[in-house]
Amino acid sequence: MKYIAIIGFGVVGGGIAAVLEENKAAISAAVGDAVELKYILDLREFPDSPWGDRVVHTIDPIVNDPDVALVCETMGGSHPAFEYTMQLLEAGKSVVTSNKEVVANFGDRMLACAAEHGVNYLFEASVGGGIPVIRSMLTSLAGDNISRIDGILNGTTNYILTRMRDEGSDYADVLADAQKLGYAEKDPSADVDGIDAQRKIIILTALATGKLVPADKVYAETMRTISAEDMAGAKKCGGAVKLIGSARISDGEVALFVAPRIVPDTCQLSHIDDVYNGISVTTPLLGDVLYYGRGAGRFPTASAVVADVCAVLSGAAMKEKRPVFAAGGDHVVDFDEIRFTYYVRFADAVPMEKLSALADVAEKLDEKEFVVGKMGRRALADLWEKLGTMPVSIIRILE
Amino acid sequence: MKYIAIIGFGVVGGGIAAVLEENKAAISAAVGDAVELKYILDLREFPDSPWGDRVVHTIDPIVNDPDVALVCETMGGSHPAFEYTMQLLEAGKSVVTSNKEVVANFGDRMLACAAEHGVNYLFEASVGGGIPVIRSMLTSLAGDNISRIDGILNGTTNYILTRMRDEGSDYADVLADAQKLGYAEKDPSADVDGIDAQRKIIILTALATGKLVPADKVYAETMRTISAEDMAGAKKCGGAVKLIGSARISDGEVALFVAPRIVPDTCQLSHIDDVYNGISVTTPLLGDVLYYGRGAGRFPTASAVVADVCAVLSGAAMKEKRPVFAAGGDHVVDFDEIRFTYYVRFADAVPMEKLSALADVAEKLDEKEFVVGKMGRRALADLWEKLGTMPVSIIRILE
Repeated sequence: MKYIAIIGFGVVGGGIAAVLEENKAAISAAVGDAVELKYILDLREFPDSPWGDRVVHTIDPIVNDPDVALVCETMGGSHPAFEYTMQLLEAGKSVVTSNKEVVANFGDRMLACAAEHGVNYLFEASVGGGIPVIRSMLTSLAGDNISRIDGILNGTTNYILTRMRDEGSDYADVLADAQKLGYAEKDPSADVDGIDAQRKIIILTALATGKLVPADKVYAETMRTISAEDMAGAKKCGGAVKLIGSARISDGEVALFVAPRIVPDTCQLSHIDDVYNGISVTTPLLGDVLYYGRGAGRFPTASAVVADVCAVLSGAAMKEKRPVFAAGGDHVVDFDEIRFTYYVRFADAVPMEKLSALADVAEKLDEKEFVVGKMGRRALADLWEKLGTMPVSIIRILE
Repeated sequence: MKYIAIIGFGVVGGGIAAVLEENKAAISAAVGDAVELKYILDLREFPDSPWGDRVVHTIDPIVNDPDVALVCETMGGSHPAFEYTMQLLEAGKSVVTSNKEVVANFGDRMLACAAEHGVNYLFEASVGGGIPVIRSMLTSLAGDNISRIDGILNGTTNYILTRMRDEGSDYADVLADAQKLGYAEKDPSADVDGIDAQRKIIILTALATGKLVPADKVYAETMRTISAEDMAGAKKCGGAVKLIGSARISDGEVALFVAPRIVPDTCQLSHIDDVYNGISVTTPLLGDVLYYGRGAGRFPTASAVVADVCAVLSGAAMKEKRPVFAAGGDHVVDFDEIRFTYYVRFADAVPMEKLSALADVAEKLDEKEFVVGKMGRRALADLWEKLGTMPVSIIRILE
């Protein structure tokens, strides 16, 4: 018998308990032993839960119980998730998590601590919910060098953008509806301002490069400004607007950014709609590999956590490549240096006499809309100065 | 130092040797030791190859060399790949392969032999080339129950179907061109008649169910009959024609089939074009997960073989769930019992007085084209009898 604990008994934590029960036979077969949930840490009581008798309110009984081999951390947030995880790892317990914030902020220290104490720290569920992208990067792509990552990493914003595109609606209306339906939070900032996607691209990039970049080195642009007109413009460009987290890796340098992008229909990511996530990974040998699935939700996320539980308790994780993250951002390329192609739309038709300023760098879609590039942010600013007017909308095109 | 051998030094075998050299550092890091190619078995000599001095012409020196820990089998075909693999496994060497034919035909015996001798038999590269679907099914989905698989499993036919759709061309013309370009074999039967896809869906289904179904229990329909008119018809149905290998798994029974299908544009598989493959796996917890990438080719396939090499030599594979395949097809549902929805097209307009026969079961697209269903093959045959005429085209729609 292997004993485990869950800390944070919310949507995902409760899902894990249910999956452990529901898929008991498959899990025992994968682990080679029965798995028993011994403790649940939460501030609340759960008198009606079948696991209500296992609830504790401090981390101590879990840390101090030598029977507990592994803990699922599903608290969310950096604190006290980080402190609890360190305590557990130091006590010789493996920890698996769905908490992208704590991995993005402190993954380096938790991985080092796990290695030092001969246990595992795994976080498959932190990116892409149930999509098995992280283990795949550590195992199947282990002998290759990842050069590029592009992902639709946030289901809430993808749902909003899909509805905006399909219904021609404006952001605010769809957001309000998504909030009513429970698909978006009351304060949607972490989703719509790209903070959630930023954490996830930081984690994926760390897996590819071994370096955990601080969030302030990762450009993140909100998608609040995307309008119904932008959606129509994207269609004119032969694509759709998606919030994309990207990494470009070469020669020890990395460019990292999250922004609404026009994704051409020839790219798989353009067809990933609703709450689904998709992550495209490029290597010299494989070309593009894309992983697609439900990026969030109780059971997909719980399923990914349980896969990590199986990997740890079977002993397989101990034999897999152990990720090492070094903190730091000196190798991050200045965002202003990165050259993009842009869709731009002006409020009014650009007068004939001014068109010459755009002649060499822009392709005209109609009198207000252009595709401009390829250039960096400063060259773009210079262009507007030369033109004497600013576009009302600028969206980078994914190439 | 870990020593390995390659048996069959063709496109993939040569790719493996190149990848071992090119990605030496990443591979050593993943394995925890240097990996050295000691033997190449092939009937030919390779005097100009940097590995020419390692060529042998019989399996014996490899079988008898205690230094060789692992052998990459990239011979293709069932024989002598099967016999060589058994000899190697019995000699205590792990074997990894890209050979779908031998896995589909003899996977049960080779896996049992590997287990008996405490070594690994891995075959990531046998399905989907470089797409890491097999390890993912064995690890990340290990705690879940797979209920459904749908895959574009053959790049050659997907290339042909994509060009037919985009250019409005007929099958024969595109095939001739694909042969000229080296994308299709001189004898394209294994690809276009669904035999290659049949082997791959057999392997994927065995991973999901533990049962290796004989090929004669798996319905496979050719895509040679698909015409430019069918492509236009698929568009009217809101989709595209793709050659799909499918498995439906429930209550210990499995339905397995390969056929050209009309895939609705709302399904990700509809957007997978050219030589790319895509594999969608459904589980109760995850919903659909889709893996997408290059399904064939020297480096994608070699990369998948090398990932297996890393998994074996690091020791990780020994800790992962070891697949067990039992041979047999008693649990396979009779294809005639499976109910589909069909696109059908008649040579001439269906006369008004006959339309009543279709009234309850068909939706009219125009006077020659209908969507019929949902029904099994016998009910469909009865319908044509009742109608007194047969359609010129019948294509199952993916639902």
